[in-house]
Amino acid sequence: MGGQQYKVSVIGSGNWGSAIARLVGQNVEKHPDLFDQTVRVWVFEEEVNGRKLTDIINNDHENVKYLPGIRLPDNIKALSDVQEAARDANILVFVMPHQFVYKTCENLRGVIHNDCRAISLIKGLDFHNNEIMLFSDEISRILGIECCALSGANLASEVAEEKYGESTIGTKNIETDGKIFHKLFHTNYLNITVIGDYSGLQVCGALKNVVAIAAGISDGLKYGNNTKSAFIRRGLLEMRKFGKTFFGGVHTETFFESCGVADLITTCAGGRNRKVAEAFIGSNKTIEEVEKELLNGQKSQGTTTALEIHRFLKARNMTDMFPLMTSVYQVIYENAPPESIIDALQH
Amino acid sequence: MGGQQYKVSVIGSGNWGSAIARLVGQNVEKHPDLFDQTVRVWVFEEEVNGRKLTDIINNDHENVKYLPGIRLPDNIKALSDVQEAARDANILVFVMPHQFVYKTCENLRGVIHNDCRAISLIKGLDFHNNEIMLFSDEISRILGIECCALSGANLASEVAEEKYGESTIGTKNIETDGKIFHKLFHTNYLNITVIGDYSGLQVCGALKNVVAIAAGISDGLKYGNNTKSAFIRRGLLEMRKFGKTFFGGVHTETFFESCGVADLITTCAGGRNRKVAEAFIGSNKTIEEVEKELLNGQKSQGTTTALEIHRFLKARNMTDMFPLMTSVYQVIYENAPPESIIDALQH
Repeated sequence: MGGQQYKVSVIGSGNWGSAIARLVGQNVEKHPDLFDQTVRVWVFEEEVNGRKLTDIINNDHENVKYLPGIRLPDNIKALSDVQEAARDANILVFVMPHQFVYKTCENLRGVIHNDCRAISLIKGLDFHNNEIMLFSDEISRILGIECCALSGANLASEVAEEKYGESTIGTKNIETDGKIFHKLFHTNYLNITVIGDYSGLQVCGALKNVVAIAAGISDGLKYGNNTKSAFIRRGLLEMRKFGKTFFGGVHTETFFESCGVADLITTCAGGRNRKVAEAFIGSNKTIEEVEKELLNGQKSQGTTTALEIHRFLKARNMTDMFPLMTSVYQVIYENAPPESIIDALQH
Repeated sequence: MGGQQYKVSVIGSGNWGSAIARLVGQNVEKHPDLFDQTVRVWVFEEEVNGRKLTDIINNDHENVKYLPGIRLPDNIKALSDVQEAARDANILVFVMPHQFVYKTCENLRGVIHNDCRAISLIKGLDFHNNEIMLFSDEISRILGIECCALSGANLASEVAEEKYGESTIGTKNIETDGKIFHKLFHTNYLNITVIGDYSGLQVCGALKNVVAIAAGISDGLKYGNNTKSAFIRRGLLEMRKFGKTFFGGVHTETFFESCGVADLITTCAGGRNRKVAEAFIGSNKTIEEVEKELLNGQKSQGTTTALEIHRFLKARNMTDMFPLMTSVYQVIYENAPPESIIDALQH
């Protein structure tokens, strides 16, 4: 950059967005030579107790709605206009629910220079006209900039409380972007590893939620530890097979990273996907009803991903290659007996 | 075998031994062409409520001491004399605490033919004169017969209750012994995979217990999910590195098997090693005192393994290569502050 400092904008301010903005705000202060000292954060404006959320964040230094009780650094500047939040940024950190990605990118088109680079913390894959896209690739395509991705065993609240954890960054450009983003995200409480396999990393982030549904079905059926760990193991193998079948450059080593086995373990131990599936078993309700009750109307990402993966595989006549993913879909959406998920393990 | 049927003897009758004798008893009945219909089981004789344990097993078909509440098949024949239990056997299933292996093998020497083959279900590695041995190799050496190994995410009580699970057999002779042992152990509730890497399989079975101590330390310190999954992940990597450094033929794929990641997950979620370590933190007691209180005087295998691995690595100046294993040893045996285990993750 030859003396120029990177201006960093965080696009999104939910639970994970706020935790990561906090970390990024801390880290730019540690590298004043490298980063501009203000971190702009795009906040979807809403009223909280009669005040604007942006005002609360800028004055009280707390996102009272999505990360209550955690102080944000003073160098975080919340903005409700996404263009204003991102204009002339050199680094964009995308951290938002995946359904908002396209609209947000379209809004950003005019204000992003092509020397900007981005990182996607968006969980999930984009199923579009029965093709799969990586969100990092879509951001890259729409904005005409490089985009890498970060994923790991990172419960947002624990990162915000500075409990020790690890995460993984996947980038085509390990020596350039990899180094910059390592400086932006690595702290003494979040240990970052940079790998080249950005596709495998994003496959893990999406498919782990489907495996967590299998784990939840197992818990709902009171199947015990041997069975549950069998589901997790088979899920890990299907995640790898899915990655290697449909994407280039997916490596086995990726599944040993935080974005792989570690995130899978965390997601299958707790988490909303596991919980929804457990509650679904024996409830005589549809999965939508269970989600409505447990998640205040939000969807658990795993159920949507299970449906999308099934459509994708079915269109290719490849459901047999992924018996666990297929069985999760059948139990959740086709009234298959929950016990039939064991058959998936006997392939 | 040309019409001859394999006579199977199970050497050991604790919790796991009884569960596996039950399964083997069921399986020989499914293959009358292949296996003799009586399964002899060596039982270390003791008195229970004024009766001999062998009599109870033979008459009541229940090991009331080590697997209460579970009916054993009628074709299980308990014997208190190990030579009588094993004489002329074609298949020996070793399933006992590792400290009894040598003495038992010495006792068996005279009664075993060299067309016999064995499988070791013994957990742990044998550290002897500062070298590591696999128990399968030691059994093989002492008795002059082939010996393979079985290990997986198998809580004994769940296998006994026929809850679905998976396990792994590692053998040099996949096409011959692999097929026989698959028939002997595979059921609709225990799915067996046969692999060639018997060394990696046994390394996993021993070192997982040390990783579970790290997980227990993390739980004792209330470090949360991100940290715990980081310990499990790093532990998995050190298990692999240990296997590849000190044994030939250890493959990455082994760590994706039930004996690898699945057993590690189960062991770190529950289990006595994790529990002992959790209770040790903040207790102001030695690990021996904690074990005495929690385990009725038994040792948790992980603490012994941690000590043995440390001595082994130290003698080779290689402790730095295994920071997590080393840190577990230091916290448990050298009064290192428990929080210092985080340093092992920051290597």
